[in-house]
Amino acid sequence: MPDVAPVLDRLDASIDESLERLFALLAIQSISTDPAFAPECRKAAEWLVEDLRSIGFAASVCETAGHPMVVAHHEGEGPHVLFYGHYDVQPVDPLALWESEPFAPALKEVEPGRKVISGRGSSDDKGQLMTFVEACRAYKAVHGKLPCRISILFEGEEESGSTSLKPFLKANAEELKADFALVCDTAMWDRETPAICVGLRGLVGEEVTVKAANRDLHSGFFGGIAANPIRILAKALADLHDENGRVTIPGFYEGVEETPADVLKSWEELGRTAESLLGPIGLFEPAGEKGRSALELTWARPTAECNGIIGGYTGEGFKTVIPAQASAKISFRLVHRQDPDKIRDAFRAFVRERIPADCSVEFAPHGGGPALQLSYDSPLVKTAEGALTEEWGKPAVSIAMGGSIPIVGDFQRLLGMDSLLVGFGLPDDRIHSPNEKYELSSFHKGQRSWARILTALANGK
Amino acid sequence: MPDVAPVLDRLDASIDESLERLFALLAIQSISTDPAFAPECRKAAEWLVEDLRSIGFAASVCETAGHPMVVAHHEGEGPHVLFYGHYDVQPVDPLALWESEPFAPALKEVEPGRKVISGRGSSDDKGQLMTFVEACRAYKAVHGKLPCRISILFEGEEESGSTSLKPFLKANAEELKADFALVCDTAMWDRETPAICVGLRGLVGEEVTVKAANRDLHSGFFGGIAANPIRILAKALADLHDENGRVTIPGFYEGVEETPADVLKSWEELGRTAESLLGPIGLFEPAGEKGRSALELTWARPTAECNGIIGGYTGEGFKTVIPAQASAKISFRLVHRQDPDKIRDAFRAFVRERIPADCSVEFAPHGGGPALQLSYDSPLVKTAEGALTEEWGKPAVSIAMGGSIPIVGDFQRLLGMDSLLVGFGLPDDRIHSPNEKYELSSFHKGQRSWARILTALANGK
Repeated sequence: MPDVAPVLDRLDASIDESLERLFALLAIQSISTDPAFAPECRKAAEWLVEDLRSIGFAASVCETAGHPMVVAHHEGEGPHVLFYGHYDVQPVDPLALWESEPFAPALKEVEPGRKVISGRGSSDDKGQLMTFVEACRAYKAVHGKLPCRISILFEGEEESGSTSLKPFLKANAEELKADFALVCDTAMWDRETPAICVGLRGLVGEEVTVKAANRDLHSGFFGGIAANPIRILAKALADLHDENGRVTIPGFYEGVEETPADVLKSWEELGRTAESLLGPIGLFEPAGEKGRSALELTWARPTAECNGIIGGYTGEGFKTVIPAQASAKISFRLVHRQDPDKIRDAFRAFVRERIPADCSVEFAPHGGGPALQLSYDSPLVKTAEGALTEEWGKPAVSIAMGGSIPIVGDFQRLLGMDSLLVGFGLPDDRIHSPNEKYELSSFHKGQRSWARILTALANGK
Repeated sequence: MPDVAPVLDRLDASIDESLERLFALLAIQSISTDPAFAPECRKAAEWLVEDLRSIGFAASVCETAGHPMVVAHHEGEGPHVLFYGHYDVQPVDPLALWESEPFAPALKEVEPGRKVISGRGSSDDKGQLMTFVEACRAYKAVHGKLPCRISILFEGEEESGSTSLKPFLKANAEELKADFALVCDTAMWDRETPAICVGLRGLVGEEVTVKAANRDLHSGFFGGIAANPIRILAKALADLHDENGRVTIPGFYEGVEETPADVLKSWEELGRTAESLLGPIGLFEPAGEKGRSALELTWARPTAECNGIIGGYTGEGFKTVIPAQASAKISFRLVHRQDPDKIRDAFRAFVRERIPADCSVEFAPHGGGPALQLSYDSPLVKTAEGALTEEWGKPAVSIAMGGSIPIVGDFQRLLGMDSLLVGFGLPDDRIHSPNEKYELSSFHKGQRSWARILTALANGK
């Protein structure tokens, strides 16, 4: 059985080199949602292939209809694991709010003894996926081999709906199927406490465009008689919630379960309150369903949120126009057994009902996937718990998560494979926002955690 | 008494030259609402001063805190009139919808015997103001003098709230005060029927920005618990109207009078219906207050319209963000004795009531002015009616208008001066929209109309 101690030493000794590699990856502007950045996405994929080859992986850039995948394989004696991460990142606007350039990563000491890596993708997900790559590199350097048979899949469309993922998994099921998947795209409980994620909300993304007159109108001539698509859209959006914060779309709560009392109690004991969650972002009033705890609201309840809206004149000054159209991007977070297709259909029907007879509405789907609920006591979870507890010196906690990682559902459905979700992000990493960062301790101890987890898996612990 | 016949002949003979001059003015990109175009606004003002000087006016560019004014004077024997127009134009977005360049004016034959002048500002208001300038030019050329004492005021901020207008009128009241004002910024009833406008809706413009969290949030982490400013804004906008299309802001209808039955009847006889008004823009359902005629809705009822809204991610693709803020531009059209200041205050209170305790709202005023109602039978109106009827061979009709021309109220309040509103625009001129045009017949017969009106005023008819 491989000895992990020298691997850990190696990771400690090579932290500077591992940072250099991460910075090179972070400098690539792989924004997947904007077609203008497609060449940068490819560049990130190529960089990863090159790096994995240097460790001894058989790695390649695999074409899709969208941004390419990175697929890599390495032999090993233990179980066969498929590691998943994504190399694409969120857009960086509003750029003016960044304290340093989003694609010029830097190491910053934010308080004595605490350093963070700044830059878009540092936490979501380039920094996270590199923790695993660095663990493999150190293992190989020390032992000349890896403790498990390892396959790797890096996606380039996670932030833009993962359009190519399902077809790619289907077409390459044979090659990608492993005993289970390791997914590193989640967060720790806090800076000292590692966490394993056993519940993930699903997602439905929709873009809705309301069209009224066949051209922009002067509100002097037509104000008070012509339909205003902003007013129609605002009404439909306002109608999505009742005064208790519940979503009003018929059938929306079908498949939503009440969280068991003992689980709610264990969450309560974590001590995170609405105050502690909202305080750092300058808020104090929970805006969702009334009468539920902060963790239940964000981990086990579904939502409807408008993520973007635009219509009419939005430049400097004023223009008294009644626009021809207005549009919004809406997303739903799903829990338990809510069906994404049914939710999408119900939403569209809900909006259509609110469109006057002489106006029209168009919808564009933006990805989606159901929620995922793992068992709290699977052997996989138990093995990882042990390894993480050893590394961090504090028991790993089992948590749920508000965000969606559709890949986990796809691994289950398409490849019949369970996923272990372990990540080292932190709630204050500002992923998707200006000034994204990743704790240096997350990056370093994350590498060490993976070395321990791989060892434990190889040892069949 | 001056003879108008040779002036009309002169206008007929010089139509090509007058078009060349108009095209030169239309080519100047004098968009007043966007600071980037400030030099173009100045250029338009300078062009006009140059042109007026060539006719013999004592003309000058007058500085303001914003875009400059053009002021010009010319002696004459008849009454002293102040002619008003504006040289600034609306923005041109969405540019993709223009069939030809907005600032490359052209003469287009749209059907046999009917030509139009295309380009931003052709109808609103450069084409209109040049009808008057050309009438003066022809008069001067034929008679060596003008039939009235004429002052001219061209504004450069009409499309952006007329911020500098009141201070300028106050500071130059002595110089600008005339017996009455002539305003050419309105429309004809239809292509053959001249009109005099005796009612104008007022305007209140407001920009509202709702602020929630201190940064953009990931909707996975914070969806369902953090306030979403788009949702708050949408709710406030949706609440502005009840199910009968009435504005719900407390006190909004204070000062609104029911239009007298005989006036409503005269409007009915004009034959414009909701169908005929909405059909050309692809709509058929009146969206305003229920149970009122199309002309009453657009001429004599107040409105609340959202002219622009923006928040969150509005680029290509999708971003699951809960934005830190969202904002909208709202305008109210006012009638009769509605008080703009009261309406603004009531709207702000209405929105503030709908802002959660941990969020905030900011307002920015964008101009405004009360409605104006002129007498249907003033001598000034009667004189113009006669001249217009002579030129067009059809009785001029007295109408109201849905748009606002705040200058008219300012002339009344600050200079104690009545205004005669005569214009040659048409409802299908697409002012404020892509593909703005002005009928060649409006431009030509508009020049002839002013020659006749000035003559009639000089003759004291």
